[in-house]
Amino acid sequence: MRRLSLIDAVSMSGNEIIWIDQTKLPFKEKYVGSSSVSRLCTAIKRLEIRGAPLIGIAAAFGIAAAAANSDAKDSDALLRELKSTAKRINSTRPTAVNLQNCINRMMKKAEELPSLPKKTMAKRLREEAYRIKDEEEKASASMGRYGSTLIKNGDVILTHCNTGSLATAGVGTALGVIRTAYASGKNIKVIACETRPLLQGARLTAWELKRDSIPFELITDSAAAYAMKNRGVSKVIVGADRILLDGSTANKIGTYALAIIAKEHNIPFYVAAPVSTIDPRTKTANMLKKIEQRSPEEVLNVLSRLRIAKDANALNPAFDITPGSMISGIITEKGVARKPYQKSLAKAIRGA
Amino acid sequence: MRRLSLIDAVSMSGNEIIWIDQTKLPFKEKYVGSSSVSRLCTAIKRLEIRGAPLIGIAAAFGIAAAAANSDAKDSDALLRELKSTAKRINSTRPTAVNLQNCINRMMKKAEELPSLPKKTMAKRLREEAYRIKDEEEKASASMGRYGSTLIKNGDVILTHCNTGSLATAGVGTALGVIRTAYASGKNIKVIACETRPLLQGARLTAWELKRDSIPFELITDSAAAYAMKNRGVSKVIVGADRILLDGSTANKIGTYALAIIAKEHNIPFYVAAPVSTIDPRTKTANMLKKIEQRSPEEVLNVLSRLRIAKDANALNPAFDITPGSMISGIITEKGVARKPYQKSLAKAIRGA
Repeated sequence: MRRLSLIDAVSMSGNEIIWIDQTKLPFKEKYVGSSSVSRLCTAIKRLEIRGAPLIGIAAAFGIAAAAANSDAKDSDALLRELKSTAKRINSTRPTAVNLQNCINRMMKKAEELPSLPKKTMAKRLREEAYRIKDEEEKASASMGRYGSTLIKNGDVILTHCNTGSLATAGVGTALGVIRTAYASGKNIKVIACETRPLLQGARLTAWELKRDSIPFELITDSAAAYAMKNRGVSKVIVGADRILLDGSTANKIGTYALAIIAKEHNIPFYVAAPVSTIDPRTKTANMLKKIEQRSPEEVLNVLSRLRIAKDANALNPAFDITPGSMISGIITEKGVARKPYQKSLAKAIRGA
Repeated sequence: MRRLSLIDAVSMSGNEIIWIDQTKLPFKEKYVGSSSVSRLCTAIKRLEIRGAPLIGIAAAFGIAAAAANSDAKDSDALLRELKSTAKRINSTRPTAVNLQNCINRMMKKAEELPSLPKKTMAKRLREEAYRIKDEEEKASASMGRYGSTLIKNGDVILTHCNTGSLATAGVGTALGVIRTAYASGKNIKVIACETRPLLQGARLTAWELKRDSIPFELITDSAAAYAMKNRGVSKVIVGADRILLDGSTANKIGTYALAIIAKEHNIPFYVAAPVSTIDPRTKTANMLKKIEQRSPEEVLNVLSRLRIAKDANALNPAFDITPGSMISGIITEKGVARKPYQKSLAKAIRGA
């Protein structure tokens, strides 16, 4: 087994949430500690903490930290306070359903607890948050194992954005599959899309791949079609921020393009995501409303550091939607779901 | 008629070639003057001068300047010198066939001239270079008129890279069509892809569109599929660096992806390029060899000014190839060529 180098991207120490500031990577490995929910919300909005499963975990820690740091006089007052905290954290980013799911789970736990002393309640919530993190870590490992069975020696795998240790707990989702296959001894090569505007591929995925010594080439997003045509890409694997029961997948902007290009070249296109990413409630017709539109400034500049265009209108959707029909399989911790997704994804949720 | 604001991107003054340094745009409008062929070659390699027709024009001026500044003792010596100059300029960039075509034309002119005095020969070559520029300007205007007939009121036109005044003489190729339609009073909107790695869309096309007050939105390259699906894109129009007789089109990296995505959404996909871009000699099987691979540093950095990834392998093809089957029409100064291109493009060349 080749060894993988994992990052603990978010955790708690005492009453503080600790995270690696991903906006500073790969040049600075800076950890931030804060007990402030406002600071956490800023960190999620600014993508210091990002990745669908990871922002779910961070939100859970946020609620645990709010409970631990609360001045509420009794558990009723605490519950009211947590409800307001939950609302604030939930409003940071609209697309990744994991955020909402983790918050709901934490609030359900808080409401289930009888009138325990505040301190005990905080302790239980912290335990629940760590349980979520632990489950996501196990889900990553399981996704890695299931996904790895799809990978052959010699595969050239194209991926987008960052879906590794920095996007969840453990090995990651799509990148977790790639890393698990590599760790198991398969000789593979990765082509990583840089992922404008915020360059999670160039900054984060390249950094993680390098730490694990996995061979890779970085490309601009627009070179993906060239790579699929001329560089022997044999699989595309990406993550997800929200998956509907019909397989419609919201993921980082550019994913839908990759799915179309993969289809044109008859290259299998896989999504890897934990069951916590599946949203059985939203209807396909309403999915577009869940797509976060971010500031035009992210397009007019590179990483807030280099201006590349004069004042101009810019369209900056953070995600796009890939229809289930274009997805060869959805790799979850329960196995690889296949079409028809309506059935296979419902089964994955029930089994979760 | 709405007025358009044209740029004179390359010209001569005395024995010097004068160009606007496009690497400095849109923040500085800096003109450079030099009589040195070495300096001109550097300018073409660095993309201070870029755009398939424009580098052809610049090359013609380069040969004219070399003749004007030569110390050769007689016209035979001058011819030998010019042959070496031609070779140097021709080696700067391999994909745009216009470069080669213009150089061949200048050298043919040089060889045709009887043993004229050096000064007269230089004068004639300068006239020939200006004739080339003048023809490209007229070709732009004609492409604009033909292409404009395809544009309807209310069209949303997606384009890539820069194909305006900065890419040729006159209004431009693809952007020339857009501008001509707008100038004629059609209400259109443009979606401009930023065009990583060198951001010609964000820096140059946005700048040209703004000067002309044409409504536009800038997007990252990976948002093109989102835009075609959700923002009413009704046409895609791009330029070309080399078009084979079967319609295979080498153009800025990302073009092939746009063609595939347009096909998926049943959006017409047009190429606009002067007949000087058509290459009747290269076979489709050999086209990939003509694709320039540029430095990985362009991917690992943004505009040599901001590092975005640690040391890593990066693949940086400057162009990709779109098959003729995906192209709805090729707009030239001779009209809109339609399938089968073998016939229509051959006819365009004969008529040129």
